[in-house]
Amino acid sequence: MGRSDLPAGYSIDAFHRGAFHLVQPDDGHRAGMDALVLAAAVPSGFAGTLADLGAGAGAAGLAVLARCPQARATLVEREPRMIEAARMTLSLAENAAIAGRAELLAADVELTGRERVAAGLADNAFDFAIMNPPFNAPEDRATKDDLRRTAHVMRTGLIEAWTRTAAAIVRPGGSVAIIARPVSLPQILSAFEGRLGGAEIVPVHPRPDAAAIRVVVRGKRGSRAKLSLLPPLILHDAVGHMLSARADAIVNGATGLFED
Amino acid sequence: MGRSDLPAGYSIDAFHRGAFHLVQPDDGHRAGMDALVLAAAVPSGFAGTLADLGAGAGAAGLAVLARCPQARATLVEREPRMIEAARMTLSLAENAAIAGRAELLAADVELTGRERVAAGLADNAFDFAIMNPPFNAPEDRATKDDLRRTAHVMRTGLIEAWTRTAAAIVRPGGSVAIIARPVSLPQILSAFEGRLGGAEIVPVHPRPDAAAIRVVVRGKRGSRAKLSLLPPLILHDAVGHMLSARADAIVNGATGLFED
Repeated sequence: MGRSDLPAGYSIDAFHRGAFHLVQPDDGHRAGMDALVLAAAVPSGFAGTLADLGAGAGAAGLAVLARCPQARATLVEREPRMIEAARMTLSLAENAAIAGRAELLAADVELTGRERVAAGLADNAFDFAIMNPPFNAPEDRATKDDLRRTAHVMRTGLIEAWTRTAAAIVRPGGSVAIIARPVSLPQILSAFEGRLGGAEIVPVHPRPDAAAIRVVVRGKRGSRAKLSLLPPLILHDAVGHMLSARADAIVNGATGLFED
Repeated sequence: MGRSDLPAGYSIDAFHRGAFHLVQPDDGHRAGMDALVLAAAVPSGFAGTLADLGAGAGAAGLAVLARCPQARATLVEREPRMIEAARMTLSLAENAAIAGRAELLAADVELTGRERVAAGLADNAFDFAIMNPPFNAPEDRATKDDLRRTAHVMRTGLIEAWTRTAAAIVRPGGSVAIIARPVSLPQILSAFEGRLGGAEIVPVHPRPDAAAIRVVVRGKRGSRAKLSLLPPLILHDAVGHMLSARADAIVNGATGLFED
């Protein structure tokens, strides 16, 4: 697909200094820092199969493919408008070098058991899963049509449901990484319990003296390693609006979040 | 008590640049950084009643009294040898200016219900509770005599048991702070759930580029405020063995951990 084929209401943005592009709806959730920092939780030498759960237009998954030339990714998304955006993203001429290593799967991350497997999310199918679960997003609010779904999510907890799927679809020894608000840390650690060990937590602060706005937590299926709380990622230095040197390297795909 | 009265096997150490002293057994657990950082979780303007749970020789409690001239403290300890050390600490001539605001309570923090109240730990009795639960300590290992106790602790979880007591003995709106290893963060957050809100987490790193060795978590009984993950305390700068300026101010009682 070329730029001239882009339907009205969508736009194209460059990421990783032009290494990949996203087609995104102008009025929907637009990928930003969160997806790029999440993608950086995958080691630069990763050469396996990745599931990007709740992939949206594909930002995190494509960021991994751009940095890890041997990796393959499955973008998992349930919202029709975002699936369409991801489909156009993968067909963009600018993404030709990496899109061949990506596939799109229309599925709901919160499915369980046989329904999940039938939707294409088989047990032990991936080496790594990454996820940026929605929060304060329109799809989190109950509508009449969604009441049953919402009730289900409220009961089990969205992070619990997403983590259950992520831990099930990675192989033993495979990894899962999540980015979320710090307020979700109790739910994340509880959901990891008994599923994902060796949790590594990286707080993400906007500035050195400000509270964290995100946490990245990475764990390994079946690991008995201890939890560790790593030095934070500081997005901006104390003065100025530029990204810090480390944040710039991470957000632009020059290095991984757990490297150096 | 004067220094010449000190029994063999005990020694006296100065803290907060001489603002208070501790009598400690030479062969037991000796207070250090942990107790001083924990004490700093109490605001400098604190003027209420403090419970120091598992007080040992009294380091954390006395550090609060030395920094907060209107505060009163109850040192809660169950081990006879440490109770004796705390008793000598409070009778030291060097501590005369603050010891009048401290009392010693021989009680087991893990008691529950009526047994706890009967031991002197009444509901809603304190404005603030601080705790540094033991880990890798001799009393954590099972002995024949302690098998029942140990079984109990293993079942409910030591941090769960200590947090349950701390949350019960502070008044509604009162605060609880704990210092522990990062590996205990899941248990801490789980134990705070439904008891203590507005959790504030401060990771403690030995150096800027090293994983955290401790976390301080502070919460307020009945608060519905969101959890926050605050900038870390870095004990030492990247180069050299001296404490960082902030760590020095905190460890020596010049400021609180949650103050600038």
